[in-house]
Amino acid sequence: MTNAQVTLIQIDNYGPWTVTPEPRREVDLQTLQSRLYADLSQLVGNREGYVFFTRFDNMIAVTNGMDETDHALVQESVGNRYPVTVSFGVGVDPSPVEALSAATDHIQDAGSAQEADRTEILRGRTLDPDERADDDVQIAHFDVNDATGKYTDRMNAFDSFIHIEQGYAELMQYMRRAHDALSFFVGGDNIIAVCPDLDAAAYEDAIEHVRDTVEVELKVGVGQAANPQTAGMAAKHALEECRDDGDRVVID
Amino acid sequence: MTNAQVTLIQIDNYGPWTVTPEPRREVDLQTLQSRLYADLSQLVGNREGYVFFTRFDNMIAVTNGMDETDHALVQESVGNRYPVTVSFGVGVDPSPVEALSAATDHIQDAGSAQEADRTEILRGRTLDPDERADDDVQIAHFDVNDATGKYTDRMNAFDSFIHIEQGYAELMQYMRRAHDALSFFVGGDNIIAVCPDLDAAAYEDAIEHVRDTVEVELKVGVGQAANPQTAGMAAKHALEECRDDGDRVVID
Amino acid sequence: MTNAQVTLIQIDNYGPWTVTPEPRREVDLQTLQSRLYADLSQLVGNREGYVFFTRFDNMIAVTNGMDETDHALVQESVGNRYPVTVSFGVGVDPSPVEALSAATDHIQDAGSAQEADRTEILRGRTLDPDERADDDVQIAHFDVNDATGKYTDRMNAFDSFIHIEQGYAELMQYMRRAHDALSFFVGGDNIIAVCPDLDAAAYEDAIEHVRDTVEVELKVGVGQAANPQTAGMAAKHALEECRDDGDRVVID
Amino acid sequence: MTNAQVTLIQIDNYGPWTVTPEPRREVDLQTLQSRLYADLSQLVGNREGYVFFTRFDNMIAVTNGMDETDHALVQESVGNRYPVTVSFGVGVDPSPVEALSAATDHIQDAGSAQEADRTEILRGRTLDPDERADDDVQIAHFDVNDATGKYTDRMNAFDSFIHIEQGYAELMQYMRRAHDALSFFVGGDNIIAVCPDLDAAAYEDAIEHVRDTVEVELKVGVGQAANPQTAGMAAKHALEECRDDGDRVVID
Repeated sequence: MTNAQVTLIQIDNYGPWTVTPEPRREVDLQTLQSRLYADLSQLVGNREGYVFFTRFDNMIAVTNGMDETDHALVQESVGNRYPVTVSFGVGVDPSPVEALSAATDHIQDAGSAQEADRTEILRGRTLDPDERADDDVQIAHFDVNDATGKYTDRMNAFDSFIHIEQGYAELMQYMRRAHDALSFFVGGDNIIAVCPDLDAAAYEDAIEHVRDTVEVELKVGVGQAANPQTAGMAAKHALEECRDDGDRVVID
Repeated sequence: MTNAQVTLIQIDNYGPWTVTPEPRREVDLQTLQSRLYADLSQLVGNREGYVFFTRFDNMIAVTNGMDETDHALVQESVGNRYPVTVSFGVGVDPSPVEALSAATDHIQDAGSAQEADRTEILRGRTLDPDERADDDVQIAHFDVNDATGKYTDRMNAFDSFIHIEQGYAELMQYMRRAHDALSFFVGGDNIIAVCPDLDAAAYEDAIEHVRDTVEVELKVGVGQAANPQTAGMAAKHALEECRDDGDRVVID
Repeated sequence: MTNAQVTLIQIDNYGPWTVTPEPRREVDLQTLQSRLYADLSQLVGNREGYVFFTRFDNMIAVTNGMDETDHALVQESVGNRYPVTVSFGVGVDPSPVEALSAATDHIQDAGSAQEADRTEILRGRTLDPDERADDDVQIAHFDVNDATGKYTDRMNAFDSFIHIEQGYAELMQYMRRAHDALSFFVGGDNIIAVCPDLDAAAYEDAIEHVRDTVEVELKVGVGQAANPQTAGMAAKHALEECRDDGDRVVID
Repeated sequence: MTNAQVTLIQIDNYGPWTVTPEPRREVDLQTLQSRLYADLSQLVGNREGYVFFTRFDNMIAVTNGMDETDHALVQESVGNRYPVTVSFGVGVDPSPVEALSAATDHIQDAGSAQEADRTEILRGRTLDPDERADDDVQIAHFDVNDATGKYTDRMNAFDSFIHIEQGYAELMQYMRRAHDALSFFVGGDNIIAVCPDLDAAAYEDAIEHVRDTVEVELKVGVGQAANPQTAGMAAKHALEECRDDGDRVVID
């Protein structure tokens, strides 16, 4: 059974900061946000976790294997290198969405995202080493069938993007509603979902739902492991098998 | 009348590269993509342009004011610092979507996005200085009314994101269909659209459509200028006016 | 005749910041410093200038072609993306050292490097377009003859470095004393000097001095142009000629 | 007794790459080098190690606590994100210079730094967990007494730098010759040395030598621990004690 440890990363008081004293140049905000995400990817990734950019001011990470000290060090490193600080809420639950809800509660209880003196919160619970199991994290890596041939090489780049985006929008809502899973667009035609224990039938259903609703054809590789990095790499290899064999769902 | 110069930026042969010889670690791909975007933001931004991350492997830029030499230098700088290269197609048209279509055609004509020997394409046409006018670029900056109070501080972070994402998905499609505009999510609850000459009524319509369809309430500031940076900053100031005065649409 | 525009870039109140409230982790300081340097390289480099890392908390730039607005934008961009701010002093003089002295005076007059409320100073004078000439900047690019064969592939990496470093220390002092030039180690076995109008004999002398004093054999390519980027690229090509033909000094 | 694990990091075939097919723009090389160093700082620093930029194309790291798998992952991460690759040689010895010599030998045995097909070497030996001790790494953190008052706020920025640089050049050579220690300039007026078991008298001697030879006055804090990060932080705290109490040498 899965037991995801999910961390909500929220930039403290970011909205007000971006327009104080005057609106800051968009190019600098874009650079700041994407580099902060890149750094968090590395800081968490070096500890076997995954971060998803989501809204950039609110990022969602799967952090099985990271304890409170690890979180504190990441928080400190951001504070040492950026003009903004970050707060962390951490939750644990067999259901990814429940884990995130707990994580969100911890941050919300500490104050509003736009409160100037609510900074560098670090609350919640992390898994003790003896609570951890080899199947705590299930990761599903989806992509769009022949996106290059069907969209990228054929339509204008925005209309291609609309298709990819529709596929993502539909999948993220279905997986959330039907399975309490958290799905994230990660670039190209790729979507990575953090899932509870789902079987092949559940993935078949989701793929069918997206095809029926918005006519985007997906396939998926699934991996499961003690941490996101190992589960995610297994998912990628499973997805390669889909590509080689023409399967829609491969569970590692 | 607007006359957008739009550049499609495509990472050459990126899909195959990410899985050769084995799937590369996701954390490194995420870092590579977001830093490449950050660098392009700066390289283009230092020349008064805007880049949007879109799919990350295909990014869309508005580049009024940049000539072919500028594009070549950006391309060279990426080649000097990344393990991947980028191709550029450039188009010009009163309609942003037509400009992007022309830009896309230039790249597609040179070969597939997944062709190993189609690299560092630089094709298309840029505006001559004497063709440029003070109203070539119209930028609209949308955000969600009270997103922090309604979503971020209240719902779990994924459900907040679903609302933001639904608002974006609906707006991007409506603006594309109704107005040939290109709309991009830029983080937080912000969407920036590159538009043809639209008036306040058109923006009112779009906002109403999104509210009626997915119950997300938007407001928008609009700026127009010879280049994206100036138009975008005017749009931000107009949006600040919306915030101060409670307006839904302010055109600078 | 040369007319260098030199900018001193000083991180405001950096020393105290690094130990407040406690000493910050060295790894984060190293990352902050080197990324700030990289960003300044790009921001200034995109405007045809050169930045040298020098002490990292005090960097020296050659900025012919950048006016006060350009400097202000670079300063703003740093402030938008870093937890520290920078001050700029700018000086112009046929002698690079005099230009730097003027630049330094402007910053020192505004207060100490360790004064908490002396931030984001921008003072000095920049060249008007009609004051600029095609030979304002002379750049000399030195390297060590066969450094790889003599040192890198043969000695331990620290003893190799001692030789390179001795060559640099001797050259920097000689060029400063004899010629009012500013010489900077730029990595590998490379030194770039910003010089007044020097002829081949002056470079021969300098190379001989270094050989006689510390037994490090240098060669040099020299370029001259209206801005650092063009002069520096000409110097690189001249240095390539040295490599091809076995010359010690090539002036483009 | 100390037992330093030292890693030599060498960019593969870098010199030739910088001029192929034409000399690459210096601004891009500077950006590449300093960002690669920043990334290595983080990758190694997240595993409790220290990296010094040294020549940038040859960097020296102290890596007690990192095994071969850790090194391989860092190497892979660089390869995934840069246009260049890196080779690693690792050595272990009570004497830092001997450890580095062993590390260098491993790389040199594999071929020249400028051999196109000698890439991503990873050789040498790392400490087993049961070989490690609490005093394996001694780190000394030096700075210049009142550098701001004596130099930065008074002289032009290059002459200040000459003083700092002379202090460093003298110290690095003395510490190497007299004590087999590796000393690195790390920015500002700071020098960090990786030392064997030295006592206060040895540090007093070194400081006196530098004062007598080049009239630069140093002080030093010293820490010792199982890994560079902990030893280095102890050294910083010891240096703070020097500042508070006016001592020249404080050993934690």
